[in-house]
Amino acid sequence: MHEIGFIRDLAVVMIVAGATTILFQRMRQPVLLGYILAGVLIGPHTPGVLVGDPRAIDDISNLGVVLLMFTLGLEFSVRKLREVGIGVLAVAVAEVGLMLWIGYGIGGLFGWTGMDALFLGAIISLSSTMVATRTLAESGQRSQPFAQLVVGLLVAEDMLAIVMLTLLTAVAIGGSVQAETAFTLVGHLGLFVIVGMILGLLLLPRLVDYVAGFDRDETLLVSVLGICFGASLFAAWMGFSVALGAFLAGAVVAESRSVGRVLHLVEPLRDMFAALFFVAIGLKIDPAMLLQYALPALLIAAAVIVGKTLACSLGIFVVGHDARTALRSGLGMAQIGEFSFVIATLGLSLGVISDFIYPIAVAVSVLCMAASPYMSRSADGLANGLRRVTPRSLRLLATSYSGWLENLKPVNENAAIAAMFRRLLWHIGINVLLVVALFVIGAYINAHNWSWFSMLGIDRDLRHTLIWAGALFLSLPMLIAVYRKAEALGMLLAEIGIRERFAGS
Amino acid sequence: MHEIGFIRDLAVVMIVAGATTILFQRMRQPVLLGYILAGVLIGPHTPGVLVGDPRAIDDISNLGVVLLMFTLGLEFSVRKLREVGIGVLAVAVAEVGLMLWIGYGIGGLFGWTGMDALFLGAIISLSSTMVATRTLAESGQRSQPFAQLVVGLLVAEDMLAIVMLTLLTAVAIGGSVQAETAFTLVGHLGLFVIVGMILGLLLLPRLVDYVAGFDRDETLLVSVLGICFGASLFAAWMGFSVALGAFLAGAVVAESRSVGRVLHLVEPLRDMFAALFFVAIGLKIDPAMLLQYALPALLIAAAVIVGKTLACSLGIFVVGHDARTALRSGLGMAQIGEFSFVIATLGLSLGVISDFIYPIAVAVSVLCMAASPYMSRSADGLANGLRRVTPRSLRLLATSYSGWLENLKPVNENAAIAAMFRRLLWHIGINVLLVVALFVIGAYINAHNWSWFSMLGIDRDLRHTLIWAGALFLSLPMLIAVYRKAEALGMLLAEIGIRERFAGS
Repeated sequence: MHEIGFIRDLAVVMIVAGATTILFQRMRQPVLLGYILAGVLIGPHTPGVLVGDPRAIDDISNLGVVLLMFTLGLEFSVRKLREVGIGVLAVAVAEVGLMLWIGYGIGGLFGWTGMDALFLGAIISLSSTMVATRTLAESGQRSQPFAQLVVGLLVAEDMLAIVMLTLLTAVAIGGSVQAETAFTLVGHLGLFVIVGMILGLLLLPRLVDYVAGFDRDETLLVSVLGICFGASLFAAWMGFSVALGAFLAGAVVAESRSVGRVLHLVEPLRDMFAALFFVAIGLKIDPAMLLQYALPALLIAAAVIVGKTLACSLGIFVVGHDARTALRSGLGMAQIGEFSFVIATLGLSLGVISDFIYPIAVAVSVLCMAASPYMSRSADGLANGLRRVTPRSLRLLATSYSGWLENLKPVNENAAIAAMFRRLLWHIGINVLLVVALFVIGAYINAHNWSWFSMLGIDRDLRHTLIWAGALFLSLPMLIAVYRKAEALGMLLAEIGIRERFAGS
Repeated sequence: MHEIGFIRDLAVVMIVAGATTILFQRMRQPVLLGYILAGVLIGPHTPGVLVGDPRAIDDISNLGVVLLMFTLGLEFSVRKLREVGIGVLAVAVAEVGLMLWIGYGIGGLFGWTGMDALFLGAIISLSSTMVATRTLAESGQRSQPFAQLVVGLLVAEDMLAIVMLTLLTAVAIGGSVQAETAFTLVGHLGLFVIVGMILGLLLLPRLVDYVAGFDRDETLLVSVLGICFGASLFAAWMGFSVALGAFLAGAVVAESRSVGRVLHLVEPLRDMFAALFFVAIGLKIDPAMLLQYALPALLIAAAVIVGKTLACSLGIFVVGHDARTALRSGLGMAQIGEFSFVIATLGLSLGVISDFIYPIAVAVSVLCMAASPYMSRSADGLANGLRRVTPRSLRLLATSYSGWLENLKPVNENAAIAAMFRRLLWHIGINVLLVVALFVIGAYINAHNWSWFSMLGIDRDLRHTLIWAGALFLSLPMLIAVYRKAEALGMLLAEIGIRERFAGS
């Protein structure tokens, strides 16, 4: 009677998802794994096909990634993003590099082509935000200190993922990549994130608070979703991933006063689409294919789990956290997920990788996902076991390293001054960046020499004058701010000088 | 980089929806109209096409109808459904019949074919649940007594809509309809609703409360959505509309103790998809086409508004509500909506109506929707105006009619006994229906003579014995209940007899 093809498929997915979530919750098993298994059961590769058009479900499940990144941003906020800091970013870079190298090595060991091996490296280098955060939520550890580190690592990896996707495309098309291209890309990404954040922070929190003032949930929800999807679309249009745009939008909206209400409204949407996302992964799995590649998949999954856990734990320990927190963070990162599918799909669509890479990627990620909750539960036992096994000399070394790092940190009054110092530098940096961005935009407009300049009767010289005068005029507030902050910085430095002289006397 | 075609379209829709909701809320205009206008602006018929694949958006927006009906059910509950009662159902039947006749007449006036005229009648006979309930919510009148009547009328109409869709299909294919088919259909529908409700009430509230006990919002939401979509799918599979299934599921889940939490979780989903639904209507509108049919559309819209308002107001007044409540209910029903599109689509796909019917249906519904909020605001003024204009004799007649109806109602002790009497009859009726349903199912199994009977070595006689014995065994609890209730009924009648003899003495 109606056109119910799509609703029928969605209904089947939601019914099995509903049954699965109750069953697995009852048996105290990871619900994510249940969703994937349910997807396999109703998928096109199992007798008794129940879902007619997996493509449509796949389309809609991609909303899950967008909404997940957005709520992640909402819970994260710019302040926390800054707190995670440079240390975690360094750990992420080192760890992703290591996994890339391990994957490439395994590919070589299997005798695969260079391109297959490279894509395998990329596939296993990125942890799954979806799995890691849901595992944290399911085990009720979201508020523990190590959870902050895991989320920080995931965000850093998501940024690296965008760099990697772009580089892989360049490699696949050109056969090699030039250092210059890579640096330009990273520069673009950095500029996009910073300018986007600053402009967003100036506009969006106020807008959201204004809309929240209408006191109607529907209005608030629809406009916040507009912001979320708008940022995703803008990011995609600039050549980055929708996930990055959604995350930045969330982090910016998190600075508004109504963030609690927004989170409350968006969470049901995220939960529904996250369930769809995992069932959709299951829909893509062909059990026969999985069996065929069981051996390499098991080997690679073991490499992912051991490699990621070791790399992240060691990295987190080195940047100054205790061994137990480091191990827990490492175990939380030991899986691959949605980005692996994206990379495998990219390779297939460019026609540069062999057909068996995709099923292997799926098999490895399913194995890691299945192991993920058990590993997060075994973290304490593992930590105690390691402590017993480790030779005493190594333990002493670790303790003294932590102690040494602790001494390096500024304390008491100096800490307060250091914080003030950092804040001033941060403000100056942002303002300088904004001025640079304005002049870059000016140069862009100038270079493109749009036709409506001549239509308005503006010749070349007048155009130059207008553009640079405009950029200078718009920069004025920022320049004044830089001047004031620099003045304050000078006074702070003088203060420190006086204090040190007194301390010295 | 990603496949973002679908997400891109959805993002554009959500951005314009977000901007529209803020703008129209700010200007204190109906947001629904804003959504439709936004849809026209980004649609395929306006220069600068922004949405690539309106079909995908249309698919996903249909979820809006399902989720709206489900939340409507959640807010409604079985108890209230029974309270609305037989009077409102009679009003709905009379009003839909009248509108069908008016539409058929207008079609004849324009010199259309009989089939075009019939479909026009069907198109203008059904009010829009989506528009009427959102208008009530936007004007903050949801808790007023007349709102209950409007919702009751809407639910009754939705049931009639299902009958009408099925009959229209039969007419369109066969050229005429037999009374027998119509009665069978109505019987099926009634049986489906009653058996579905009873089985649902036995199982679902307990299940929902059990799941709510896990105290995880995600689990509760996903399983409730599973129930909602499951019921929709089951209804569609039985030949009814997904909307009916979703509504019944909501009404049943509303009997669980956790209904407040469920409603809270489902509302954001409904709001998002309702916005999508209205933008999707806008996407289908071709402004040029609307202009072309402006005159007939205006005439029909006027007929809808005047006809529906008069018919519903009069009906509600006749079944015993005061004139002001009746007028407000009538004004709340004076529009057509989603079912009109469904019926027009049905006619087009069966190839029995002319091409111009669909744009006219869209134009009329847009005109009515646009007028809807203004009419609901003008209800008080209109009521006062009517009171002044009405001749005194008519006012007296109305007052005495209301007074006469009031006297007919049972009072005090008799009211309590009457309520008990009704409840007993209701219980007996339900149990008898359940027994009948069991034997109907038995007859169905018997008639189909499935092969696994013979596979199990069960011959014809044994099969008969088994089936009827099984049906009888399963009926036993119901039969016992009927016996007990009948006994109680007898005692109640005796009680009334004694009371009357005393009153007589």
